[in-house]
Amino acid sequence: MGQKVISKAVIKRLPRYYRYLGELLDAGVERISSGELSQQMKVTASQIRQDLNNFGGFGQQGYGYNVYYLRTEIAKILGLDRPHKMIIIGAGNLGQALANYAKFEKNSFHVVGLFDNNKALKRKMVRDIPIMMIDELPGFLQKNDVEIAALTLPKENAIDMAQILVENGIHAIWNFAHTDLNLVVPKTVAVQNVHLSESLMRLSYNLKTLEEEGKIK
Amino acid sequence: MGQKVISKAVIKRLPRYYRYLGELLDAGVERISSGELSQQMKVTASQIRQDLNNFGGFGQQGYGYNVYYLRTEIAKILGLDRPHKMIIIGAGNLGQALANYAKFEKNSFHVVGLFDNNKALKRKMVRDIPIMMIDELPGFLQKNDVEIAALTLPKENAIDMAQILVENGIHAIWNFAHTDLNLVVPKTVAVQNVHLSESLMRLSYNLKTLEEEGKIK
Repeated sequence: MGQKVISKAVIKRLPRYYRYLGELLDAGVERISSGELSQQMKVTASQIRQDLNNFGGFGQQGYGYNVYYLRTEIAKILGLDRPHKMIIIGAGNLGQALANYAKFEKNSFHVVGLFDNNKALKRKMVRDIPIMMIDELPGFLQKNDVEIAALTLPKENAIDMAQILVENGIHAIWNFAHTDLNLVVPKTVAVQNVHLSESLMRLSYNLKTLEEEGKIK
Repeated sequence: MGQKVISKAVIKRLPRYYRYLGELLDAGVERISSGELSQQMKVTASQIRQDLNNFGGFGQQGYGYNVYYLRTEIAKILGLDRPHKMIIIGAGNLGQALANYAKFEKNSFHVVGLFDNNKALKRKMVRDIPIMMIDELPGFLQKNDVEIAALTLPKENAIDMAQILVENGIHAIWNFAHTDLNLVVPKTVAVQNVHLSESLMRLSYNLKTLEEEGKIK
């Protein structure tokens, strides 16, 4: 695969390919042409070929793509070919929703602990995952090889918590708080911000646009 | 404002401007230059000027932007200057997390009902929002002027539910199910898909990249 730099736009599309290929596998499809894949995903066949050529191209002229092989290769590119231990800080509804989300495990993300400072939640279990108190966090991180921390906390707490996590060796933060955590952690920490409000605002914009175009009475 | 077509990339950035301007307002900042805003948001000043020029430009040479005015104008562009009624289908952890999220209301999104088919949840309240049964949905939609439906359902149910919602006059779907609902509804319906798994996979990719670059031992 080498050291070729892959554009952000391509990386952004890879998980979607991965999902569609998974659905094809579940449906018993063994191979697929870029044309068929393009119809299902509503992107052009040439974009699919271009995107996958970034990684050496996995298709064969006249045969198409082997679904299982292609999905396995994409998994490797995304780092899904080995397990990742994840903790969730904030055991409210959103934190518990993430913990309950068994599908992450299929993709090699294993939630090993939830943390909160609400004593009423202490030692409660979500599925088989214990809720622990925040003061237990540093000890837990020392004993367990955790790579990813999901933050479902208010903004003020998230910034402080990010510092604590980084000091304790976490290198990947999945941030649901309303702040761009990538701006406050070192560049050696990967951050994905999930800004739900922003997604809802884009929906509102698109709704307004449909109205202005007269497509909605 | 006229009929000028605004690029998707600009629209994608507007909610972020809106959020930063809100933080500035909360901090008592009345005006700001594109240079200062650029420092805080870590985008170039020229991008900020370009983006905002799409909407006629709100700044004055040598004065900068009036924070309140600029935020109000962006709110109008995003359709946040009037209330939107929203329902949530699926009253599990994620649905309840969204219902509990009071911040949406500050941005004019008002959750007026949760729906589920789990009878154990019937008539339970989340904050002041009642959980109703799915068979009450068509009647509820006839009586209430609901614009947006958030779907926190498994994929299989989400596709069927989207059809029912569209038949009952919903024109905006905020979709959390693992499927691209925009591909199955008419073009007169706005859809935002929130694919949490894909965000987590991008995080995994970025973590792997840091490792490969030797930035993490």
